[in-house]
Amino acid sequence: MITRIAKPKKPVLYAAILAGGRGERFWPVGRASRPKQFVDLFGGKPLIALAVERLRGLVPPGRVLVVTSRDLVPATRAALPALSPEQILGEPQGRDTAAACALATAWVGKRAGEDAVVCILTADHLMADSAAFRRTLAAASEIAARRPVMGLIGIRPTHPATGYGYVELGPPVAGPGLPKGFRRVRRFVEKPNLGTAATYVRSGRFVWNSGMFVWRVSTFRAALAAYRPALLAAMDRVAPRFGTPAQGAALAREYEKLDKISVDYAVMEKAPNLVAVRGDFGWDDVGTWASAGAHLPADAEGNGVHGLVRTLASHGNAVVNAEKGHLVAVFGADELVVVHTRDATLVCPKSSADGLKDLVRAIGGDPATAAFVR
Amino acid sequence: MITRIAKPKKPVLYAAILAGGRGERFWPVGRASRPKQFVDLFGGKPLIALAVERLRGLVPPGRVLVVTSRDLVPATRAALPALSPEQILGEPQGRDTAAACALATAWVGKRAGEDAVVCILTADHLMADSAAFRRTLAAASEIAARRPVMGLIGIRPTHPATGYGYVELGPPVAGPGLPKGFRRVRRFVEKPNLGTAATYVRSGRFVWNSGMFVWRVSTFRAALAAYRPALLAAMDRVAPRFGTPAQGAALAREYEKLDKISVDYAVMEKAPNLVAVRGDFGWDDVGTWASAGAHLPADAEGNGVHGLVRTLASHGNAVVNAEKGHLVAVFGADELVVVHTRDATLVCPKSSADGLKDLVRAIGGDPATAAFVR
Repeated sequence: MITRIAKPKKPVLYAAILAGGRGERFWPVGRASRPKQFVDLFGGKPLIALAVERLRGLVPPGRVLVVTSRDLVPATRAALPALSPEQILGEPQGRDTAAACALATAWVGKRAGEDAVVCILTADHLMADSAAFRRTLAAASEIAARRPVMGLIGIRPTHPATGYGYVELGPPVAGPGLPKGFRRVRRFVEKPNLGTAATYVRSGRFVWNSGMFVWRVSTFRAALAAYRPALLAAMDRVAPRFGTPAQGAALAREYEKLDKISVDYAVMEKAPNLVAVRGDFGWDDVGTWASAGAHLPADAEGNGVHGLVRTLASHGNAVVNAEKGHLVAVFGADELVVVHTRDATLVCPKSSADGLKDLVRAIGGDPATAAFVR
Repeated sequence: MITRIAKPKKPVLYAAILAGGRGERFWPVGRASRPKQFVDLFGGKPLIALAVERLRGLVPPGRVLVVTSRDLVPATRAALPALSPEQILGEPQGRDTAAACALATAWVGKRAGEDAVVCILTADHLMADSAAFRRTLAAASEIAARRPVMGLIGIRPTHPATGYGYVELGPPVAGPGLPKGFRRVRRFVEKPNLGTAATYVRSGRFVWNSGMFVWRVSTFRAALAAYRPALLAAMDRVAPRFGTPAQGAALAREYEKLDKISVDYAVMEKAPNLVAVRGDFGWDDVGTWASAGAHLPADAEGNGVHGLVRTLASHGNAVVNAEKGHLVAVFGADELVVVHTRDATLVCPKSSADGLKDLVRAIGGDPATAAFVR
């Protein structure tokens, strides 16, 4: 036997992927029954599968948890065959992210104890640089393991976006052995107007709120005890049923009574022990078909295309053809979104893509067409 | 027996519908194997069926002849089940309209003699006022029966079109019992530029050349004898084989040697015995998807639509959906052409529809997509 010098113990790291969401912005590929995390146009896999894959080397599939709606559990299992059934939790109702975070933290706590670290992640965003993303997560989990703080993965703003929440950074968090780059959070700001957003970006003090967080089980439990004790108690009643036949009934009973509130409002904006990092790993929330175009392979004319597509004298379009054996042709047109699936075809200018839910609701509200959005 | 006063004998009237053409301008509904005359978006029937139908009361189906390409004979029979097989002639090669007119006239001559009147008609135009069209044809056939003239059905110009040939009208043709409105033809003018076209329209002396003609068999034979004797001789060699098993071989033998030339160049521009009428029956050659839009039913937002289509915040589009069970949705877009069929979808601005053949040729020239234009 060779004697080794003991290293500091690495934290036990779990990833909880929140996979609620709707399909409206990605209709007709996205549907109510097939929301954005199942869209498989990027890298040939559903976004939720990419979310698990990019953790490789940091969080093994056996330590991944997915929180989704009960209806989507079968589709989620199909998209993530490496996960065992108990790793996919189906919420009986949507109660926003406070409930989902509490549920995920309770599940990890039961399985791995109060010192385990939970990364709350999103199911439907893209990150160009997975290695940089993993380094950021590893650093955040390191600080969450060593200090009683909750870490927010901020995003270095690339432009004065008005569709995201911003977080103002305060003084650095320093200490022996702590990873660099973390700062105390000064305040949360809801979606600002363009002028304010531009000021934020110029100041260098703000990051976008990505909705990704990292905390120790015990730290988040303490925050819930302070700001949402009823939610903590509800999840403590559910926890003994995880992985048992009684899990579904327990969730149904407790979710019925829960408030619908985001974890930002419920906990983060109140907690003093919040730290954030300025993440820089090519994050994109792929919010609309217009932004999705940038992630599609470019054809000879610079259009973002997927599937069997031909363009001529056309530029800046996003053209998605999800039906094999079908041809989509665009001629003399610029800056359009064209999306074709087996049973529906969408045409809209990129500039209108942000309002696509209006169309989806109109289609869903008409009995003659409602089936096309389900 | 009751004795009646003998009326002047009505001419025996035949209609010869020239149905060559290509599908390029109506891709993807039109294909090389399914040219424009088979497009069935207007009134629920193929254009060629509408061409036969609008003759009702003037020319019975038994006196209709269709001249098309040999490849299209089966599709033509399917579109015109009321016609017997010998009424559909398949040309072995495209030799332009001089050959088709000579062939049709020879066929009518063999069947009904030299005094029969032939109306040369198009397979792929629309006429809003069928009754007015029949009145014009009846008048032209009356004059062609009584006088050794060839009648051109002109179209009263509605705008300074630059895509049509123009015909300048001369002095009126008058005489006892002759129909009114016919004038001698002064000259043919090829597609003019916009300024010249505007002058023509303002002058009131010009009509568009519709490509529709009316003549007695004997009159056209005399013109061929004068200007295209080889063509007349070729058709005289074919004539004995009409309706026999030798017809195909005879056509193949003669067509091989024929010049490819339009009847306008070969005969009409040379003949002194040409008369024309200023037709006014809502003629439209439906030249592109952009012009086709005006003939489609309008939706609530004023878009021309066919099939299961939903538009929102969209105006002036032509949206054709030829696939049952499929939804085409247009959102926030104006002045587009969107055409969907089972295996192909086209998106282009109306302003580009005129150049659609460029796209079709590009698709046809690529082995990966050539099948979609055949």
